[in-house]
Amino acid sequence: MRILITGGGGFIGQKIARSLAGSGRLREAAVSELVLADLATPARVDAGFVVTPTACDISDADAVDALFADHGPFDVIFHLATIASGGSEADFDLGMRVNLDGTLAIFAAARAQGNCPVLVYTSSCAVHGGEAPEVITDGVELNPQTSYGAQKAMGELLLNDMTRRGFIDGRGLRLPTVTIRPGKPNTAASSFMSSIFREPLQGEAANCPVKDDFPIWHTAPRTVTRNLIHAAEIDGALFGQNRNLNLPGRTDTVRQMIDAMTRVAGPEAEARITWNEDPTIFAIVTGWRAHFRPDKALKLGFVADEGFDDTVRWFLEDDIAIP
Amino acid sequence: MRILITGGGGFIGQKIARSLAGSGRLREAAVSELVLADLATPARVDAGFVVTPTACDISDADAVDALFADHGPFDVIFHLATIASGGSEADFDLGMRVNLDGTLAIFAAARAQGNCPVLVYTSSCAVHGGEAPEVITDGVELNPQTSYGAQKAMGELLLNDMTRRGFIDGRGLRLPTVTIRPGKPNTAASSFMSSIFREPLQGEAANCPVKDDFPIWHTAPRTVTRNLIHAAEIDGALFGQNRNLNLPGRTDTVRQMIDAMTRVAGPEAEARITWNEDPTIFAIVTGWRAHFRPDKALKLGFVADEGFDDTVRWFLEDDIAIP
Repeated sequence: MRILITGGGGFIGQKIARSLAGSGRLREAAVSELVLADLATPARVDAGFVVTPTACDISDADAVDALFADHGPFDVIFHLATIASGGSEADFDLGMRVNLDGTLAIFAAARAQGNCPVLVYTSSCAVHGGEAPEVITDGVELNPQTSYGAQKAMGELLLNDMTRRGFIDGRGLRLPTVTIRPGKPNTAASSFMSSIFREPLQGEAANCPVKDDFPIWHTAPRTVTRNLIHAAEIDGALFGQNRNLNLPGRTDTVRQMIDAMTRVAGPEAEARITWNEDPTIFAIVTGWRAHFRPDKALKLGFVADEGFDDTVRWFLEDDIAIP
Repeated sequence: MRILITGGGGFIGQKIARSLAGSGRLREAAVSELVLADLATPARVDAGFVVTPTACDISDADAVDALFADHGPFDVIFHLATIASGGSEADFDLGMRVNLDGTLAIFAAARAQGNCPVLVYTSSCAVHGGEAPEVITDGVELNPQTSYGAQKAMGELLLNDMTRRGFIDGRGLRLPTVTIRPGKPNTAASSFMSSIFREPLQGEAANCPVKDDFPIWHTAPRTVTRNLIHAAEIDGALFGQNRNLNLPGRTDTVRQMIDAMTRVAGPEAEARITWNEDPTIFAIVTGWRAHFRPDKALKLGFVADEGFDDTVRWFLEDDIAIP
């Protein structure tokens, strides 16, 4: 069982790597090698199998081919590498190069292996918006209102078609906003949805660019890691003719999430939040949807969080970094 | 008013050209030049303005840039060039090169002009299928079951996003099967939907690869030409946040269409049809949908045919070619 994670230096890639290191197994087989690829060489993860961190710019098709020639073939690929929503909105061409061309290159290299590998693709709830109902059910037309969402949706279509043709065994997951992300703020327009909890819990100030009645469709890092591995484990045929689905999540307002933080960690954190509205971020995030009914994913055994209290607790256990 | 038609040698491109030659105008301005681009240099069309047929392989981005440098800038672009459904299914890479890379190249060149040109894009009812309801309304998730449909749907997403960003003024039309096409059978899986009328009306034999109760979602060449020009004429803002829509059409069974042919042209034609089922074609065309409710398009003034009798009459007036 040989595994590749693109975006292997990112926090989700690292969490998948640590989870695999813990179990040593995937799809009922022992893991022999895990390749972590990212723009900068990812951090190594301790494991009972070979872990190979390597640098690769996926927007360069030749670099992707070299990655597969040097380290492949892979049985399972987690394709996580991406330019996030804010970054893709700020620089259209960069987003196209990484999110579209990069995905085309990874899928083409996976196909060229000839072994129809399992390919788990991270799409996003940002594929929804525009002329879509307020509550997103399975089967709603994708009408993304960001370039990130459009590029992710194009990848979904390609994943479906290449799976239908037997080139890859694709599984595409539309991730809710993952919060509380560890580390630093990133270029995602949703970055504040982690910052307003992470920074205050770490003793620092953070700004909330929306009002506290703003609803967020979210999932915890632990939960999304579990769901990504579940996507690789299950029989692809269960997905049916659409290999992409909305992952389960929770809808809470910023206020409900702050109250959960206070219940778990005390009142000091909230006092570190400032409330300066940001029209650029507001325009992007209000184009998303906050209410979903992910029936297909629930039927396939994907899981939702029970409450943001758990998320805060897990952040304190797994990820808190006091500067 | 300078206009480009890609696929300008195809029958729809030629019909748009002749319609523009007739009116001399588009978007309330006189046409000064019409460039007809295709893989092979298209036939010239007589007009009161300059008509420039030229050869261009749109899958070659450098050739597309040269086309725009030599003949642009354009105010309106009709992007019709495509590898049809059967051809894209037979050769995945060719379909990707023309239908995806070619569309990316045309859109990029249109953006580079800097004038946000009107861009009419021909998508297809083949974007629908799979986990979609039997009756397609506006807002149903695209779940194409052919590579052609997947590639067309990817182009739709890009059209939407580049329009949202102000790079182009896109309008995407999902064409019903256009019948009765003039000329020769092509690589479309739907080719028989013209052949079984065209060849018999021209005194030749043709095979029907499906049973006569097979329902077809169709539109006539005259009607689709009118709708494509209408798409260029109207205010793009009327499309709303989704610049792609299902065009109106009609649902008739093969039997109903043959009966219309008999009413208009007599019983000799039907006798020239053979009935040998073809499982490859059947697999593709049964993945499509035959029933639509294109409310948005009707509201925007796009039109449907009144009956297949008209289609047969128009074929006899416009297109019949007795060998």
